[in-house]
Amino acid sequence: MNFEDQIRDFSKQVKFSADFGKLAPFNNIIISGMGGSGISGNIFSEIYDKAPVQVVSDYNLPSYADENTLFIGISYSGNTEETISAAREAIKKNCQIRLITSGGILSELGQETVIVPKGFQPRAALGYLLKPFLNTFISSDESIYADISRLLLEMESDNSKEKEIAKLIFQKNSIPYVLGFPPFRWVAYRWKTQFNENSKILAFSSYFPELDHNDAIPMKLTYGKDNFSFLVFGGSTGQIEKRVRYTSEVTSTDFITVEPKGKTLLEKLFYLIHAGDYISYHLAKLREIDAEDVSVITELKDRLKS
Amino acid sequence: MNFEDQIRDFSKQVKFSADFGKLAPFNNIIISGMGGSGISGNIFSEIYDKAPVQVVSDYNLPSYADENTLFIGISYSGNTEETISAAREAIKKNCQIRLITSGGILSELGQETVIVPKGFQPRAALGYLLKPFLNTFISSDESIYADISRLLLEMESDNSKEKEIAKLIFQKNSIPYVLGFPPFRWVAYRWKTQFNENSKILAFSSYFPELDHNDAIPMKLTYGKDNFSFLVFGGSTGQIEKRVRYTSEVTSTDFITVEPKGKTLLEKLFYLIHAGDYISYHLAKLREIDAEDVSVITELKDRLKS
Repeated sequence: MNFEDQIRDFSKQVKFSADFGKLAPFNNIIISGMGGSGISGNIFSEIYDKAPVQVVSDYNLPSYADENTLFIGISYSGNTEETISAAREAIKKNCQIRLITSGGILSELGQETVIVPKGFQPRAALGYLLKPFLNTFISSDESIYADISRLLLEMESDNSKEKEIAKLIFQKNSIPYVLGFPPFRWVAYRWKTQFNENSKILAFSSYFPELDHNDAIPMKLTYGKDNFSFLVFGGSTGQIEKRVRYTSEVTSTDFITVEPKGKTLLEKLFYLIHAGDYISYHLAKLREIDAEDVSVITELKDRLKS
Repeated sequence: MNFEDQIRDFSKQVKFSADFGKLAPFNNIIISGMGGSGISGNIFSEIYDKAPVQVVSDYNLPSYADENTLFIGISYSGNTEETISAAREAIKKNCQIRLITSGGILSELGQETVIVPKGFQPRAALGYLLKPFLNTFISSDESIYADISRLLLEMESDNSKEKEIAKLIFQKNSIPYVLGFPPFRWVAYRWKTQFNENSKILAFSSYFPELDHNDAIPMKLTYGKDNFSFLVFGGSTGQIEKRVRYTSEVTSTDFITVEPKGKTLLEKLFYLIHAGDYISYHLAKLREIDAEDVSVITELKDRLKS
């Protein structure tokens, strides 16, 4: 499957029906995942608040991990060294364990595992990696996801707006600074990583209201501001809506606003994720760069193994 | 007290002996704090792992907050709207509550409160805001903090290295990208915010090993790389040490390394925090900008109130 087809698969992925099965009671959730695999845990952690969720992006588990912990390890390839190390610790500590992977070492640990389809870049399999969380903890109502799928198909048939934003960034060779807000802080981070991996450009993310306590100052007074494009998500309300507007005004900073379509939180969430996919993909095409290529990461991994 | 004296006060602040007093058992910790006040909670969350810690930088508490939650609200001024809102929710939800503030509305909520000295910018009071956590949960051994204080005094009498790094950034008008690693990921973020607030420049942070899964690609292939200065902390070991070295080599990126002094984790932690204070302060002086001035944030707050 070529990379554009992998991106287009997202509208199918949101209908992926796997879940984590029957769970014993737990006090806390620890999720291990890196890069394009870990982001699903981060996004889930922001829309679930019935128990503490800690996403670990490192080799080790916190010492509080025990038999009352639900450990969820995510590695698309199944061979991510940090996640394998964390999963082995979770086994030793008698955590309740669930894994998500397409294969690799993770699938051979003898634990309850959601197997997702092979053949994708991990970052183009976000639907498969995110849906087990949503199906288990948020909603398993298929009609919700059918609605989301239709919304994503619309973007697939017309992503001219996303192409337009890619052009704005490309024309000034700017670095995207994506400004999110709860519950889309990790969607902003997802955009950052998609610009990194697909468009091969540096990119950053932060979020309201926190950024008003630090970034607002340089947004007015920094040097080099013209090297950046400030992207914000539309659809905020209340104090956050005011903060977005006032921050732009007080700091004299132009924000490029991306309006999410959809009515529910999940519709907006998936819509914004996919908009970031397309913007970063179109930007790669404008740069005449292979969006799928991750040879730099492969080279790094090979050197770390040797 | 002028701003440089506030920075110099750090060597006194690490000897601040207040703690949270006797605590009832708890299952999880929720910390609320924004900007220069919240960072103490973030830094603590990275060196404490006996219970789940969630730092909330928003108006609301997660729904799992209950009588088994230890809620710690931090606002130097005592008037931060997000933290006041979160503290009021914590009272309603019967959390066990501790507050840290120099006064304001937070000091009038009738809760157990650590009162810290007035007269500082919140970001120059980090020692006061961090020490109650360390004294309560990490170590109350005064000799440890006396040793750290001596280390910080050394930097105060000679911060020529920090000035040198400020010059490197200033001479190319570059944007700092601070690359941390556990347990100094939030120290890297602290540096970002100090560059924002003191030097009034955009700045960003990330950390190993996560950044190898996304930033490594643009570090090799992005446009505009010369507009950035990549700062890394020395003293990593094992796989992280290899990752730092290989990432620089594979992506042909020059890293400016800041070596922490000290032997223990806490010594290195305080040393690195203070190095960031001085670098960002020297950079403000080179830019002929008032490091203390936060009038942009004040203007934003005033507009939000009206």
